[in-house]
Amino acid sequence: MKPPLSATEAAAAIDAGTLTAQQLVRDCLDRIAEREPAVRAWAFLDPALAMAQAKAADASNGGLLRGIPIGVKDIIDTHDMPTGHNSPIFAGKTTFGDAACIALCRDANAVIMGKTVTTEFANRHPGPTTNPHNAAHTPGGSSSGSAAAVADGHVPLAFGTQTGGSVIRPAAYCGVIGYKPTFGDFSRVGIKMQCHSLDTLGLMARTLDDIALLRGAVLKLPPVKIDRSIAAPRIGFCRTPLWADASGETKALLERTASKLAAVDVTFAAPFTNILDDHAAIMGWECVRNYADERLRNPDKVSRELMDGPVRKGLDVSFERYVAAQRKATAFKAHVDSLFDDVDVLLCPSAPGEAPEGVEFTGDPRFNSIWTLAGTPCVTLPAGAGGKGLPLGIQLVGLRHEDDRLLSTAAWAAARLSP
Amino acid sequence: MKPPLSATEAAAAIDAGTLTAQQLVRDCLDRIAEREPAVRAWAFLDPALAMAQAKAADASNGGLLRGIPIGVKDIIDTHDMPTGHNSPIFAGKTTFGDAACIALCRDANAVIMGKTVTTEFANRHPGPTTNPHNAAHTPGGSSSGSAAAVADGHVPLAFGTQTGGSVIRPAAYCGVIGYKPTFGDFSRVGIKMQCHSLDTLGLMARTLDDIALLRGAVLKLPPVKIDRSIAAPRIGFCRTPLWADASGETKALLERTASKLAAVDVTFAAPFTNILDDHAAIMGWECVRNYADERLRNPDKVSRELMDGPVRKGLDVSFERYVAAQRKATAFKAHVDSLFDDVDVLLCPSAPGEAPEGVEFTGDPRFNSIWTLAGTPCVTLPAGAGGKGLPLGIQLVGLRHEDDRLLSTAAWAAARLSP
Repeated sequence: MKPPLSATEAAAAIDAGTLTAQQLVRDCLDRIAEREPAVRAWAFLDPALAMAQAKAADASNGGLLRGIPIGVKDIIDTHDMPTGHNSPIFAGKTTFGDAACIALCRDANAVIMGKTVTTEFANRHPGPTTNPHNAAHTPGGSSSGSAAAVADGHVPLAFGTQTGGSVIRPAAYCGVIGYKPTFGDFSRVGIKMQCHSLDTLGLMARTLDDIALLRGAVLKLPPVKIDRSIAAPRIGFCRTPLWADASGETKALLERTASKLAAVDVTFAAPFTNILDDHAAIMGWECVRNYADERLRNPDKVSRELMDGPVRKGLDVSFERYVAAQRKATAFKAHVDSLFDDVDVLLCPSAPGEAPEGVEFTGDPRFNSIWTLAGTPCVTLPAGAGGKGLPLGIQLVGLRHEDDRLLSTAAWAAARLSP
Repeated sequence: MKPPLSATEAAAAIDAGTLTAQQLVRDCLDRIAEREPAVRAWAFLDPALAMAQAKAADASNGGLLRGIPIGVKDIIDTHDMPTGHNSPIFAGKTTFGDAACIALCRDANAVIMGKTVTTEFANRHPGPTTNPHNAAHTPGGSSSGSAAAVADGHVPLAFGTQTGGSVIRPAAYCGVIGYKPTFGDFSRVGIKMQCHSLDTLGLMARTLDDIALLRGAVLKLPPVKIDRSIAAPRIGFCRTPLWADASGETKALLERTASKLAAVDVTFAAPFTNILDDHAAIMGWECVRNYADERLRNPDKVSRELMDGPVRKGLDVSFERYVAAQRKATAFKAHVDSLFDDVDVLLCPSAPGEAPEGVEFTGDPRFNSIWTLAGTPCVTLPAGAGGKGLPLGIQLVGLRHEDDRLLSTAAWAAARLSP
């Protein structure tokens, strides 16, 4: 396989007339045809529909994403493809409209390539996707197919969503860049809701420039380039209260990285050491109500894993506990904001370690859930491999609403860390 | 017309066996048949479907809302009735599932009576509903049909939604009780999204007990009764920075009420006198993106009023302005929380005055938008009539997450104010 073009490179080549969208999409479809039997990243793919969009893109007059193929997590609505949510309730069903993020990408003349495998309703019950680096391991979840498809060169860009760690973790496990924006920036219209206080649409790509490109399209901004001329940023090293749960090689990687980046230690104040419990209370209370239609009208079509796990646990969360967690979350957001008084970004683990073996357990989101609750922008960068030869990642976390600064700092760090 | 039963009275009678759900629903359908030609509150109503649900409720074993008919704003999904959004894009289209609030009400054995008229996508372009007190006047919007249907005795309960003032204002204009909960408490799954930072599902009823009843079902709580034994609450009188926009009779009503309730003056700090501008920036920026599919794929089916007004204005809001407004909103929420340091609830206008003449302009939401942005629970209570014989209301605003205290205080105030 020749190294796949990044979205930024491909868009430039299409603009310059040295590449057509049809050629690009055909190359991607060839790659998928070759690899899909092992990777199983796609829940729906219609090559003819993808090629028709590519043809239209070639005939169009530009657009930020002209001709660029995008993978779409299968909990995101598309008017011309089914949205299955990895659930028999929705299998084969097509919505009337596109999710807002899809409509905005189409407006930028992107090619909506197909739907990527998700866990059931972006919760825990897994799909069949495997890790492209080793098919005996999970790609992570819930945005399993998006991470695997980008990592394996099927598409340069993909959408995922994160309630706990469903963008950053699979991106880290598969060795690609994952990005979760500041809570509230990206529209969630047309995306299956799990927890309204947490769910965040995120992006996956193989380069930071590609993240910036897609971010611009989803926000409907003028093209924003990553600033690579910034002064050396101040990095905080936040082991988080969960440090003991990181593997030895993850700890070593982070310590080494912190040292290279001259990071200073930053710690959570004592009242927030158990903040993960509040994330769990909010997630449990909200998901039970947000899944009301599925679990009450079609209980036999919901997985036992969901009904006996998150739903049962969620029903045990009292309203008083939920309110206390929401109040704590408000205080936590303010506290996390204050961690940035003296640093530009925080460095922390992307995941406890390499992707676990098997595809049944999609891995532990704890190093992500805390930041999802905080509403901060996060990015994971590939950072070599672990003992089993699977990717490791480092996570950079920014101040809310400072996504541009986070991406610039990530580019600075990536340049500093590259061998 | 005999005075219609409240939901609480009807539920008790059904439980006691002195009323059947079928009789109740038949009475409501009779009332609708008589009044609908003038009021035009309903976008969809199938009497046979309503009666079938009533029959099932009579055959069921209880439930918090057993047999109680509920009107549903036509931007809220129902699997067995179309959800039209007052838009030709969605006319006659039925979704796969129920909104979470509908599923939870069905679980409590309610009767989903039908869909009530909304403005287009809960924005400004009006439907045909008239004010039941005077058909030459608007019922308010965007939850026009829900307010009119409850006021006119078609149903005891209805759902509305509020982004600016779309629950409290029409409730006040129609002389019923409107309630907007703390932001985040009620699930928005299956409800058309206009602005994710603002949209709030709310309730309408003719009694506070009915509000508490429906609130309990939507939150899936054990039945919560309004505490009528509370000590005299401390009331703050908040004229708001918009006081000059209130009519003379609204000002007089509020001053009189504040005096009767021994309210103490509470004012916004100077940085927040223009907070309405930030509400507008957030609403504009978000609605343009959230309406992406409709306005980009079906621009000719979106009203000129929406395209030339909110969409055009929203496209002019820069991302920097949006971010500044979000940061201001965060500070504003903390400031509003602090207003409750010395008082239990705030008293303020529900609307500038009586419902405007005509149905084209659904009225000014400014006295509501500030609280929608603050995320506070709000309730409007009917408070007599204005110079044109149309209802006036007073609004009570609570501390976030103190909805129970707000409803108890509202009951205390209503008892204190009744002639």
